[in-house]
Amino acid sequence: MVVDHRVASDEPTRLSEIVAPLFADQAKGWWTQLTGGERVELLAGADAQDDCAVFRVNGPQELVIGSDYVRGAKFRLYELGYLNEYDVGYYLAMANFSDIAAMGAQPVALLSVIRYPRSMPDEVFRMVVEGVRAACDEVGAPNVGGDIGTAERLILSGSALGAVESGGTLRRNGARSGDRLCVTGFTGLAAAAQRYFGNFDSGGTRISAEKEGCLLAAWKRPQALVEHGRLLSTSGVVTSCQDSSDGLKAAILSIAAQSGVGFLVDEDALPVADLVAEIAVLSGSEPRDLVLGDSVDFQLVFTMPAEHLPGLRARFAAHDLSFVEIGTATTSREVMLRRKDGTMEDLPGAAWRHAS
Amino acid sequence: MVVDHRVASDEPTRLSEIVAPLFADQAKGWWTQLTGGERVELLAGADAQDDCAVFRVNGPQELVIGSDYVRGAKFRLYELGYLNEYDVGYYLAMANFSDIAAMGAQPVALLSVIRYPRSMPDEVFRMVVEGVRAACDEVGAPNVGGDIGTAERLILSGSALGAVESGGTLRRNGARSGDRLCVTGFTGLAAAAQRYFGNFDSGGTRISAEKEGCLLAAWKRPQALVEHGRLLSTSGVVTSCQDSSDGLKAAILSIAAQSGVGFLVDEDALPVADLVAEIAVLSGSEPRDLVLGDSVDFQLVFTMPAEHLPGLRARFAAHDLSFVEIGTATTSREVMLRRKDGTMEDLPGAAWRHAS
Repeated sequence: MVVDHRVASDEPTRLSEIVAPLFADQAKGWWTQLTGGERVELLAGADAQDDCAVFRVNGPQELVIGSDYVRGAKFRLYELGYLNEYDVGYYLAMANFSDIAAMGAQPVALLSVIRYPRSMPDEVFRMVVEGVRAACDEVGAPNVGGDIGTAERLILSGSALGAVESGGTLRRNGARSGDRLCVTGFTGLAAAAQRYFGNFDSGGTRISAEKEGCLLAAWKRPQALVEHGRLLSTSGVVTSCQDSSDGLKAAILSIAAQSGVGFLVDEDALPVADLVAEIAVLSGSEPRDLVLGDSVDFQLVFTMPAEHLPGLRARFAAHDLSFVEIGTATTSREVMLRRKDGTMEDLPGAAWRHAS
Repeated sequence: MVVDHRVASDEPTRLSEIVAPLFADQAKGWWTQLTGGERVELLAGADAQDDCAVFRVNGPQELVIGSDYVRGAKFRLYELGYLNEYDVGYYLAMANFSDIAAMGAQPVALLSVIRYPRSMPDEVFRMVVEGVRAACDEVGAPNVGGDIGTAERLILSGSALGAVESGGTLRRNGARSGDRLCVTGFTGLAAAAQRYFGNFDSGGTRISAEKEGCLLAAWKRPQALVEHGRLLSTSGVVTSCQDSSDGLKAAILSIAAQSGVGFLVDEDALPVADLVAEIAVLSGSEPRDLVLGDSVDFQLVFTMPAEHLPGLRARFAAHDLSFVEIGTATTSREVMLRRKDGTMEDLPGAAWRHAS
């Protein structure tokens, strides 16, 4: 049978001709193992076409599960033509796996909800599914099912499952006064990309194509920091962790609220990517507002006692990874920024709910 | 603080004033136990406001997980004004738990994705969340999180998690030639409701208000047959199972395809609700088309060797439950209906993809 992927097939045809071949290899049996030998094995995945996917677990272990709806066709940069359907599929999976990484968990599975307009050509629908699958391959966890069907527009949502050694899950509520506050890398790139590409109507200053590519990568190929998260959870010294998907400020405020502490953040210590600094200048704002604000990056923000920093740094370095100290947890519940000139102010930046 | 729920609050306010109070009691610690003492305990639920919910499992056991997007605001009967926001929230949860029931699993958790238009009044938003919660209470599993935020219309999706004793999960692929085919009860009610209420434009014949209520109940208060599913899985004699959410015919075809068998279904044995027969007459169609077609009911369709029927019947009866035998699995891969007059034909009815 010859399939013309420029056409928009009905759902049974899409499932049999596009989805099924992409997931045929799950039948081989996927499994993952934690440090104590605890295992999660896939017994029935997407290829089984059953009501649910099935896993076998031994124990004891902890399971984490979360859902992320992503704006998909309503992404600003998709509407502007900078992201395609493969990109939003990839993003869907990574946004969900980032929540798994933030718990210190080993990714076990993704469930993807892909609802598409009936008129979407098969080749475009295939791009969505392939984007999801590529991100799953990247983190090493299968896309075991979900819900595929029609809707009036592309609607994307997902749920991810992860496993952690018993007692090892990284929550937001364990930070203690005196703990050091750390972040795994640059934030603000996603917001810088939105600001740069979103304000192109009136011939603003262009940056190089290479730099544009770096900016777009924050949206096209976001990375869930699974390896970082596993190092943090298996270290046994991390007291809290969260991803920065609502922005760095929101992550810090959330850890503060859940843990019952405050934070003193050093402006000098905040990692600022050159590109973020450049876009800040172009858009007439302060770099710290982009770095702290509601930028949808997937860095991990975490706390730990200072005495364990050298040990964790060494573990990270052994994996060619690193992190940056940006502040200290305080008994006072306030969350403050110490400016470069030594003055103190409330942590700046938009703290709430990105409009990705 | 006095909250005016007729207004449309911003998201932080909805979360703190509406969602948080509804989930505050999860902190008490929920757990469920399987027949061998295997436990799943909730360590962090929706009240923890973390990246994910966290469960502790011991083992060995099997976990099942699935996702269902529901049309929500695009439900035909919602658009016509017969369902309200509480109803579609309730439906979302039950549709997801029905997949758990069909695997023979004990429901462990629901993740709900509730995206709402910014203009939706708080009291209407609250109805959605309360509908979801009521259905969760009904099956005894907590709504541990998900994703709440804005969108251009009400968008509802969910994922559910369940647990089964090791080796006990009910799949679609275990039916063997000679097995009896059974169903837990009436199908066709959901389709009858759509047909009846959807064709009211030109003053068609009305049925009594009481009967209208029964029809609507298929959409307003669908029930995931968790107790039935648990009896089926712990019986150890059931060879396959699926829910009838795509219709009875679709369920039978799917078990046939996955198991590599055919079925001979007896028209005489099909359970036909009086109300379905009445709507069939009113709408000029055959009752069997409603009973077998793409009606979104949540009955369980299953197979088992005939010799174990008396034992399972007794177990069901001890719980005031029952089921009906409707056919037999065959070596031939065909799925046929034996009509009341003894003639044979391909199984009638629309088999694919409801447009709920």
